[in-house]
Amino acid sequence: MPYFDAASTAPLHPVARQALLAALDDGWADPARLHREGRRARLLLDAAREAAAEAVGCRPDELVFTSSGTRALHTGLAGSLAGRRRTGRHLVVSSVEHSAVLHGAELHEAQGGTVTEVPVDRTGAVRAQAFGESLRADTALACLQSANHEVGTVQPVEEVAAVCRAAGVPLLVDAAQSLAWGPVPGAWSLLAASAHKWGGPPGVGLLAVRKGVRFAPEGPRDERESGRAAGYENVPAIVAAAASLRAVRSEAAAQGPRLRELTDRIRTRVPELVPDVQVVGDPVRRLPHLLTFSCLYVDGEALLHELDRAGFSVSSGSSCTSSTLTPSHVLVAMGVLSEGNVRVSLPPGTREEDVERFLAVLPRAVAAVRERLGAPDSPAAPSRQGSLVVDTLGRLCPVPVIELAKVIDGVPVGGTVTVLSDDEAARLDIPAWCAMRGQEYVGEEPADRGRAYVVRRLT
Amino acid sequence: MPYFDAASTAPLHPVARQALLAALDDGWADPARLHREGRRARLLLDAAREAAAEAVGCRPDELVFTSSGTRALHTGLAGSLAGRRRTGRHLVVSSVEHSAVLHGAELHEAQGGTVTEVPVDRTGAVRAQAFGESLRADTALACLQSANHEVGTVQPVEEVAAVCRAAGVPLLVDAAQSLAWGPVPGAWSLLAASAHKWGGPPGVGLLAVRKGVRFAPEGPRDERESGRAAGYENVPAIVAAAASLRAVRSEAAAQGPRLRELTDRIRTRVPELVPDVQVVGDPVRRLPHLLTFSCLYVDGEALLHELDRAGFSVSSGSSCTSSTLTPSHVLVAMGVLSEGNVRVSLPPGTREEDVERFLAVLPRAVAAVRERLGAPDSPAAPSRQGSLVVDTLGRLCPVPVIELAKVIDGVPVGGTVTVLSDDEAARLDIPAWCAMRGQEYVGEEPADRGRAYVVRRLT
Repeated sequence: MPYFDAASTAPLHPVARQALLAALDDGWADPARLHREGRRARLLLDAAREAAAEAVGCRPDELVFTSSGTRALHTGLAGSLAGRRRTGRHLVVSSVEHSAVLHGAELHEAQGGTVTEVPVDRTGAVRAQAFGESLRADTALACLQSANHEVGTVQPVEEVAAVCRAAGVPLLVDAAQSLAWGPVPGAWSLLAASAHKWGGPPGVGLLAVRKGVRFAPEGPRDERESGRAAGYENVPAIVAAAASLRAVRSEAAAQGPRLRELTDRIRTRVPELVPDVQVVGDPVRRLPHLLTFSCLYVDGEALLHELDRAGFSVSSGSSCTSSTLTPSHVLVAMGVLSEGNVRVSLPPGTREEDVERFLAVLPRAVAAVRERLGAPDSPAAPSRQGSLVVDTLGRLCPVPVIELAKVIDGVPVGGTVTVLSDDEAARLDIPAWCAMRGQEYVGEEPADRGRAYVVRRLT
Repeated sequence: MPYFDAASTAPLHPVARQALLAALDDGWADPARLHREGRRARLLLDAAREAAAEAVGCRPDELVFTSSGTRALHTGLAGSLAGRRRTGRHLVVSSVEHSAVLHGAELHEAQGGTVTEVPVDRTGAVRAQAFGESLRADTALACLQSANHEVGTVQPVEEVAAVCRAAGVPLLVDAAQSLAWGPVPGAWSLLAASAHKWGGPPGVGLLAVRKGVRFAPEGPRDERESGRAAGYENVPAIVAAAASLRAVRSEAAAQGPRLRELTDRIRTRVPELVPDVQVVGDPVRRLPHLLTFSCLYVDGEALLHELDRAGFSVSSGSSCTSSTLTPSHVLVAMGVLSEGNVRVSLPPGTREEDVERFLAVLPRAVAAVRERLGAPDSPAAPSRQGSLVVDTLGRLCPVPVIELAKVIDGVPVGGTVTVLSDDEAARLDIPAWCAMRGQEYVGEEPADRGRAYVVRRLT
């Protein structure tokens, strides 16, 4: 059954599985011990570090293994901020970083630091110049992902790294989504990644800290991993992670163009096959295996279940999907439609016929969800009223947009529809709907409950 | 080849290996995702949590999986101390806790907290009364291991838990060494453990926090594991950890008495077979699989290598072994000999003939090291001097004790030998030698370099 959610977790690479099994036999003991089992584990750990460092493009003594990518980011953030505390407590992040970085920034702010979020354009990319302008004399650290995990847009890391270097600010790069495809270019200072994103086993992250970068590890001291990752080393998983990173790298030249062709096909065909769809993210400067689109009048979770029943595993950045009931902060930062959002991320080896089958299944799946939700398909009866108020309080996305679409033709051109909504996603999806439909988004106002979103009919 | 270092890492249990392989097939995906692969991983994770909670003796929603036992201890300490900050910043630990706890305590002190270390007796056990007397109105947390990791002594956790409960202080139990043998008795509040100690894979720790215990997780927020263990869950390893915990528990009734008989045999026979040996730890209230002894005039690392060449993997708490050049804090706290220290910890299934072979090999191994180090075997020529000074500055254990032993017979009864040493271990090993030899340890004084240890000849 086709699994199109590689950006969450890539299926275990056969090389990872093989290396894991071998290392469970040979590298299960404590690498800190002096007996032969310990020495064997130490040798395997050292070899894995060398292989991973080569793939990252750093020295082996600059790289430590952590228990996850999240842990690598948390450690990188905390260690840099503590190490550069004398310089200041200002942190710069892009607004579309992974939540591990943004939550780290949130904690830094709660502890008295200051944070600047650099905005992105509608494709999800920062501009190096804007990034540079956010750097200050008291900036301790800047963070930028190599590529976005939800929309696939590749960030201008090399330019941003140059700007940071010129300002004397270390740059921490979250390379979780891109490391499988190649080393991160440019003069970055710290780099974090996660093995289960490249087909390695879970339980392994990596953190590279270039020599000369100030770094003060936080938490209780611990002798393992140069004092930067407390706790017993997971040698078998580390061995498997390093082996699979080498393997995916050697396959990248063949897999990259293949998957790019398949994702290009989906990007082109989906808007042809499904009405009212917005494909988001940069069409060119993007990861080869990942694309995202949003569907008007669709509940992302319902669509995900519909596709799951049809045999396709994808994920969604819609608010309706997440446990927090807020839409993906990435889509919010880009200012694009969040409802009915679907992220398709193809693992290496994805078959063309599965992609074709997905394209065949998708229109029916979207139509089924729209029908269940009562999405508008015909214009409403005309009304003589110059304005209408639609109360969708207590109802989640995509209902506010559906109700808006149902009544818009009921007001004369020039008239307004006011949608009352207490769903956070409405703030994003109502303006996005207006842009897609050529209607005017007038703005939002506070209401007794929730907010009032005002739309003027133009067509 | 016999591996007698199960207390560092137990060999992977066959059930763990089997469960890991199965879960790599079925539980490799992200359990936070809604597609079928994600739901399968979630089901496996939930089942593992239930199994582990049953073995621990807590509710599933009280238990989270961490990336290591060290991480579980760090999280337990930090979360409790933060959660009870209003009560005060006083922390109580035993002096023989694992370094993960003691380093956590060290950090707490560096951050302005206060720490009381409860001493142990010569067997390595705390007394519940002394533990209780260290609790104060501002005590936020107390920590006690269920059993010591270096000498195997079982702590009076049930009594200490009762004393803590009466004082309204939560007790964090480090159950790393004992969880394989059974649940920790008593009204503890938090419990931490590590899967690779019970034959599970590396990369999994567990932390139980009883309902009602104040707990404020530290670090950036994260939705996984109830917000108490940031980062992607390592589902396959967690499944393997839970499965192997059940397996070792079901085998404990058979393995426990078998290993206890074997370790009893080593405890009894070693002092018969090897001269000048001190077996340490409680002979009765102890873990079934672990024992420790120290050998006079022996360098622990050299003995470990000698045994390794003979095919036996053990570990050592001697200062000569560790990278820090300080003797095991556990042996220091107990006030017993640290030189030539050997920890033997038998994995389940250890064969009787391997233990017999170990006992046959050990005397030769000790003798070889003693010979190389020039340990005394005959009395020194008598001297008319009433006192002697032996300069061992710059020389590591066991040299100071060897030089002392060589010259003691050279002074008349009533005369003194002063040993100059800058090795930390001398502070422990010279008094221990005096106790073993029936000589009087007069005390230590500062010297130009290092310390001067004064011994009076009595026999």
